[in-house]
Amino acid sequence: MSMTEKLELVSANKSFGGWHKRYRHRSRALDCEMVFAIYLPPQAETERVPLFWWLSGLTCTDENFMQKAGAQRVAAELGIAIVCPDTSPRGTDLPGEHDSYDLGSGAGFYVNASREPWKNHYRMYDYVTEELPSVVRQHFPVNGREAISGHSMGGHGALIMALRRPGHYCSVSAFAPIVNPSQCPWGRKAFHEYLGEDPGSWTQYDACELVAKGASSQPLFIDQGEEDDFLVEQLKPERLEAVCSAHDHPLTLRRQPGYDHSYYFIASFIEDHLRYHAEYLFKR
Amino acid sequence: MSMTEKLELVSANKSFGGWHKRYRHRSRALDCEMVFAIYLPPQAETERVPLFWWLSGLTCTDENFMQKAGAQRVAAELGIAIVCPDTSPRGTDLPGEHDSYDLGSGAGFYVNASREPWKNHYRMYDYVTEELPSVVRQHFPVNGREAISGHSMGGHGALIMALRRPGHYCSVSAFAPIVNPSQCPWGRKAFHEYLGEDPGSWTQYDACELVAKGASSQPLFIDQGEEDDFLVEQLKPERLEAVCSAHDHPLTLRRQPGYDHSYYFIASFIEDHLRYHAEYLFKR
Repeated sequence: MSMTEKLELVSANKSFGGWHKRYRHRSRALDCEMVFAIYLPPQAETERVPLFWWLSGLTCTDENFMQKAGAQRVAAELGIAIVCPDTSPRGTDLPGEHDSYDLGSGAGFYVNASREPWKNHYRMYDYVTEELPSVVRQHFPVNGREAISGHSMGGHGALIMALRRPGHYCSVSAFAPIVNPSQCPWGRKAFHEYLGEDPGSWTQYDACELVAKGASSQPLFIDQGEEDDFLVEQLKPERLEAVCSAHDHPLTLRRQPGYDHSYYFIASFIEDHLRYHAEYLFKR
Repeated sequence: MSMTEKLELVSANKSFGGWHKRYRHRSRALDCEMVFAIYLPPQAETERVPLFWWLSGLTCTDENFMQKAGAQRVAAELGIAIVCPDTSPRGTDLPGEHDSYDLGSGAGFYVNASREPWKNHYRMYDYVTEELPSVVRQHFPVNGREAISGHSMGGHGALIMALRRPGHYCSVSAFAPIVNPSQCPWGRKAFHEYLGEDPGSWTQYDACELVAKGASSQPLFIDQGEEDDFLVEQLKPERLEAVCSAHDHPLTLRRQPGYDHSYYFIASFIEDHLRYHAEYLFKR
């Protein structure tokens, strides 16, 4: 990782006094070209700033959160950079990769695949926890303090990364996360394809299982819309609630009446999340 | 207009304590089915609220502003409803209608067309100033006080509607508007097709010409990004500045260094605009 990674600037937009930029780079972890987005607040022109990772959900790219969440206003005020990775490898053409919205392209599920045909590309866990952080550190004025959050499949990603890497992220939160992928249709379909049938390989990517194993004691902060169409079949927040309660794991789960799974829900509460993270990111 | 118009709910999302809703209805002015979006702030559940009209630019629909501008947070705080019309008739298949991004579908230019094949459908001026306001009054708790704004082609629409209807809108603003469509490529192409070659028919839809005619003395508030790719060839704010100066028309034109033509620019300054409009909308 000592070689400087090459980045190609795709676009740049001034936003709330800072800059939203998109870059293309060659990912070794994923063996393909990837695009990611970064928001640099105005403070980044004169100092190193903390970093907020946002992991998006099924079918998304780096663009959804940057365009729709309204996060840049708050990040500019607080002095926090935001990085949005894409949600799967791109530009590959594996068998069946583009056939359904919940598997393959746009549905990397933030795991390292161990099965053919996925295993040489679908290594989103390594990409988001190792390779992309290294790229960001090399090219942007970040200060080493990091928080992580995400939505749906990306909420799952944020939770498992924080639970598996105790001490790494100052704080973690999620919007409508898939908390128990081993036990819901989206997760079972993806884990079966990417990881095979060994249940032991699934638990390392399942927030409920990780809490049960006591891997970390980091507090979890979650917002969940009560009118979310995926609440009952896919998201199952009551399972995380139960396992956190049984294992004394700190959890704040807010059920928001009337809200659905859309970015209107995320936009409505992203300010709460960013201010929550700021308390940890700026703690001395 | 005494018959109650039928509306079909397309979708509803709770947002900042209020509701973002999309409706389909049959437009008589445009002779086609149209979709529009409305944001109802939480205050609309118990009282009648003022209304902010947003007119979008080329290629847009009702969705761009609602998803990307971050306006609902401020509208919810202030207690203002937002209506976003679509930017052209839809579902028609006129010759050449879908061939280019700056003519036909997505490019209604907020005029009443007088030429074939456009004149039976492309009547966006009437739709936005007459028919849709009547629909909104019939179905939603608005109090009759209205402001108007828009972006690019929609900024042009907002300016001409306010200038042609003195006393109707409490206030008007625009982001990167086409201020002199008779004298820029986008406007000349559209006006030629929709209105024909009589220059007299163009001036009624040209903000610079309307200011020169002294049609209204309503103050104009405009934000323009200095790195906007369309600044020199299409937008030409210096022309509006000159004519306002010559005719003593009140104009606040803010040139924003570094900002481009995107919704990142709009999001960065929409709060300023909504607070500006609120001063007029809530004035006793």
